[in-house]
Amino acid sequence: MANSKTAILLIDCPDRKGIVVTIVNFLVQQYDVNILNADQHQDAELGLFFMRVEFSTESTGLSEDAFRAAIEPIAREFKMNWRIEFSDALQNVALFVSQYHHCLVDLLHRHKAGEFRCNLAMIVSNHAGARALAEFHEVPFHFMPVERETKAQVEAAQLALLAENEIDLVVLARYMQILSPEFVSAYPRRIINVHHSFLPAFTGARPYHAAFARGVKLIGATSHYVTAELDEGPIIEQDVARISQNDQLPSLIQKGRDLERMVLSRAVQWHLDHRILSYANKTVIFA
Amino acid sequence: MANSKTAILLIDCPDRKGIVVTIVNFLVQQYDVNILNADQHQDAELGLFFMRVEFSTESTGLSEDAFRAAIEPIAREFKMNWRIEFSDALQNVALFVSQYHHCLVDLLHRHKAGEFRCNLAMIVSNHAGARALAEFHEVPFHFMPVERETKAQVEAAQLALLAENEIDLVVLARYMQILSPEFVSAYPRRIINVHHSFLPAFTGARPYHAAFARGVKLIGATSHYVTAELDEGPIIEQDVARISQNDQLPSLIQKGRDLERMVLSRAVQWHLDHRILSYANKTVIFA
Amino acid sequence: MANSKTAILLIDCPDRKGIVVTIVNFLVQQYDVNILNADQHQDAELGLFFMRVEFSTESTGLSEDAFRAAIEPIAREFKMNWRIEFSDALQNVALFVSQYHHCLVDLLHRHKAGEFRCNLAMIVSNHAGARALAEFHEVPFHFMPVERETKAQVEAAQLALLAENEIDLVVLARYMQILSPEFVSAYPRRIINVHHSFLPAFTGARPYHAAFARGVKLIGATSHYVTAELDEGPIIEQDVARISQNDQLPSLIQKGRDLERMVLSRAVQWHLDHRILSYANKTVIFA
Amino acid sequence: MANSKTAILLIDCPDRKGIVVTIVNFLVQQYDVNILNADQHQDAELGLFFMRVEFSTESTGLSEDAFRAAIEPIAREFKMNWRIEFSDALQNVALFVSQYHHCLVDLLHRHKAGEFRCNLAMIVSNHAGARALAEFHEVPFHFMPVERETKAQVEAAQLALLAENEIDLVVLARYMQILSPEFVSAYPRRIINVHHSFLPAFTGARPYHAAFARGVKLIGATSHYVTAELDEGPIIEQDVARISQNDQLPSLIQKGRDLERMVLSRAVQWHLDHRILSYANKTVIFA
Repeated sequence: MANSKTAILLIDCPDRKGIVVTIVNFLVQQYDVNILNADQHQDAELGLFFMRVEFSTESTGLSEDAFRAAIEPIAREFKMNWRIEFSDALQNVALFVSQYHHCLVDLLHRHKAGEFRCNLAMIVSNHAGARALAEFHEVPFHFMPVERETKAQVEAAQLALLAENEIDLVVLARYMQILSPEFVSAYPRRIINVHHSFLPAFTGARPYHAAFARGVKLIGATSHYVTAELDEGPIIEQDVARISQNDQLPSLIQKGRDLERMVLSRAVQWHLDHRILSYANKTVIFA
Repeated sequence: MANSKTAILLIDCPDRKGIVVTIVNFLVQQYDVNILNADQHQDAELGLFFMRVEFSTESTGLSEDAFRAAIEPIAREFKMNWRIEFSDALQNVALFVSQYHHCLVDLLHRHKAGEFRCNLAMIVSNHAGARALAEFHEVPFHFMPVERETKAQVEAAQLALLAENEIDLVVLARYMQILSPEFVSAYPRRIINVHHSFLPAFTGARPYHAAFARGVKLIGATSHYVTAELDEGPIIEQDVARISQNDQLPSLIQKGRDLERMVLSRAVQWHLDHRILSYANKTVIFA
Repeated sequence: MANSKTAILLIDCPDRKGIVVTIVNFLVQQYDVNILNADQHQDAELGLFFMRVEFSTESTGLSEDAFRAAIEPIAREFKMNWRIEFSDALQNVALFVSQYHHCLVDLLHRHKAGEFRCNLAMIVSNHAGARALAEFHEVPFHFMPVERETKAQVEAAQLALLAENEIDLVVLARYMQILSPEFVSAYPRRIINVHHSFLPAFTGARPYHAAFARGVKLIGATSHYVTAELDEGPIIEQDVARISQNDQLPSLIQKGRDLERMVLSRAVQWHLDHRILSYANKTVIFA
Repeated sequence: MANSKTAILLIDCPDRKGIVVTIVNFLVQQYDVNILNADQHQDAELGLFFMRVEFSTESTGLSEDAFRAAIEPIAREFKMNWRIEFSDALQNVALFVSQYHHCLVDLLHRHKAGEFRCNLAMIVSNHAGARALAEFHEVPFHFMPVERETKAQVEAAQLALLAENEIDLVVLARYMQILSPEFVSAYPRRIINVHHSFLPAFTGARPYHAAFARGVKLIGATSHYVTAELDEGPIIEQDVARISQNDQLPSLIQKGRDLERMVLSRAVQWHLDHRILSYANKTVIFA
């Protein structure tokens, strides 16, 4: 967690000889940067290469536009997808929540404790119950109830609100509404959801009830990017907790809440720190 | 792990007032036993009651037949399923294995180290490779190759072999053949399998490949009683291990082997210690 | 988590034949109660027996005084320590905190979510920073700064405050002051602390720094009852998290906060549910 | 786990600008290698930099002597400690064991299953009991009993045996003799031990008994490099398992055996794969 100004270059491309040396020389010789970290990953099966380079931008006078122009020939040569992120650019985050507040409380407190480098721009809820919490944390609260017949127009209003506030990341902190494909496609790999099961087990509604009925010995929770297919997006983080026959449904749900908090908060932090590369419906976490 | 002679009474019945006091008085007043352990469990949803009582049978002169006759009226009154097991009755166990030996090696060594109170009566394999291991551990080895067209007759021969040796428990230690419903029904709740995924995720063949493709962050293994429905029997134990993008398929499979060993050996030990009650496709573990 | 009125009887005594049947008959024949749960534990080494019986008190007209008188002869005969607790008697809890609020926030939210059956009677802090949180949750806040020379008189004031409010349980939610033996002896087995290490490793101050310096691969946290010996009281719960070289001190401390929350909240819940028996500087958890 | 011929360069040096680009250019421009992996680590507190680069040596005609000469000026400039390892150089491993065989069985089977790339050159034991196992696995067995008065001469004989067989790594698989500082200093960072506790808790003899007496809720095991100070060497891996009051000493010890197997086998694999850098009594694991 560097405090000084840094930039993060994220790359994926077909794997071949010479990528590392090319990128490293581009950064060091062109910009005289100090490389703080350079992680790579290969997917041998798909023949893909991934890289995350973090470098100090102090005293380099690096301008984003010039950087884009300079890296373009390399990106073309290696058929790279790439992006650059700057540590001093605070991302705007919207938290969506319904009637369960445990993830919301957790995210708000972690933000206050300095775990997330972002601007909590708004809380959106289809229930009024989180208003007091929002006010306590001085985050703007938008009560936007959803009915079957109003869903499309509420989503339109939400999208307008997100656009207006230049939201970078939407976090579904137990938001119990299914987003339309149109909404999802407006924020590709920028909507994080928490599902209260160990995906791909127990997709859909009431996963704790399904887990209880199946008699599993561990319950789980999963954070993932939202895609058009419900509960099928790239998994970011998962965790499990042991249960026994002593855990009837209520205590199983209580234990699950702790898992949800953990996997969602880790996903948010990694996303904000630009540690996640997503491809082929998977994620690479440069942790 | 009591060394003295003990008996274990296992009960399940509809939950109602008076069960504990009735059972406890029956044992203590009728037989003057010393109760070593009495665990219960209620399934509130299904209204069921479960109990496991372990008691010393030394100096009680308890005979199984007399016990059966004596408990019968109580069992009828409370609509109990019950069974009694004696710690000095060594169970006969058959290990089935195919070409992967990690679970077999583990079970053999644990038996030698005294973790399992049983008689390892035989190793059955559709591959010849485990013969040397069997001989080293002085367990009779039966090489019984299976082809599609011979499967029925091989199963018949296996069942005859099991019957002849009065086998109490069949352990499928990565036995890669699907047992027929007839075979399964001959040993209800007495065949334990290990499946190399966190069930119910990734049922069927090649679960590690499926887990890798889905991009999960934890892999799992599950031991369960075998029922007619493949991978759907009551779960006995599960465990998981964290993986990352650094774990391509081979290391994922290697980590999985450790999980398989753990969940299978725990299931075998609990079964042999009469710690498992199975109902409603679930298990209660009195651990 | 029963909703109806129940009582919990907790017993420890030298192990001998006849305890279970005596207790069960006492409860059922004397009071016609419905036993909901009866857990026992033996410490074979020390020859001790422990029991927790939960029973419904509805329609039994059980009065505490009469119960005390009735059980006394049994207690004498078996040399029992015993106590009875009633589920409808809300315990009064005082939360002590210093400048780190993560445990406090967690406890407050869990209470609001219904995880703890208790009355949060007060928050005591030697720092003013938690006042807003206390007010948001409508819990009386007492700012009681401690200096070396005022420590004794502050403790006296705290004890008076606790007595006045009939506090049953003191929770040190990262309270960074060492309590005097006099304070501790006023609340035996009724002060719960969280220590940010896997005890007995890294007792004393700055355990995360010590763990980092030693190069451990897992960090831990421990909740325990406070005794006169610092960090030496009976352990209630422990948990660990994996770290790597990527976790320098700040991220190690951040991961540790999650552990602290978990082990402290579990200890508080178990204590409030009368699930903990403490003996020989250990705890038995009837979970 | 690359199958083709690769080399691994391991570096540690004071952290400063330009290390990565210098090393990468040295490898790629001088030797035209294909970099397969390049991991780094910084210890911000100590100002140290660590790097592990794995590269294909096929068609490079890289000779170790020439490489040494070529890298020397760079190493001098950056004050580097460095070494190069070749994946096709099989390391010779000696396993030391006493009367408990669970770790030995595990290592032998993992080797047979292909998890370790090494030559199991010998088993040394102060007990005769492992001979049959050694013969089954066709590993030379040396029975070298140790008495207090013969200890020095036995160690001398052991060192001669290790030297004669060009042993690269000594694994103490529950070898219950304390090695002298002279023995240890002959194999710096090349003796791996497993200690049956979560170090630094419960150093010394009978750690399970000490853990049981302290009433911990998790037991642990630790693998570490052996140094002159008993149980104080750099920790390589640790793991824990949950226990409860139901785990009296024997089951606690049984659960511990599984931990010992896991942490020791991981340490051996990482060492053999040249994934461990040790400094300041810590380890960096490039896993």
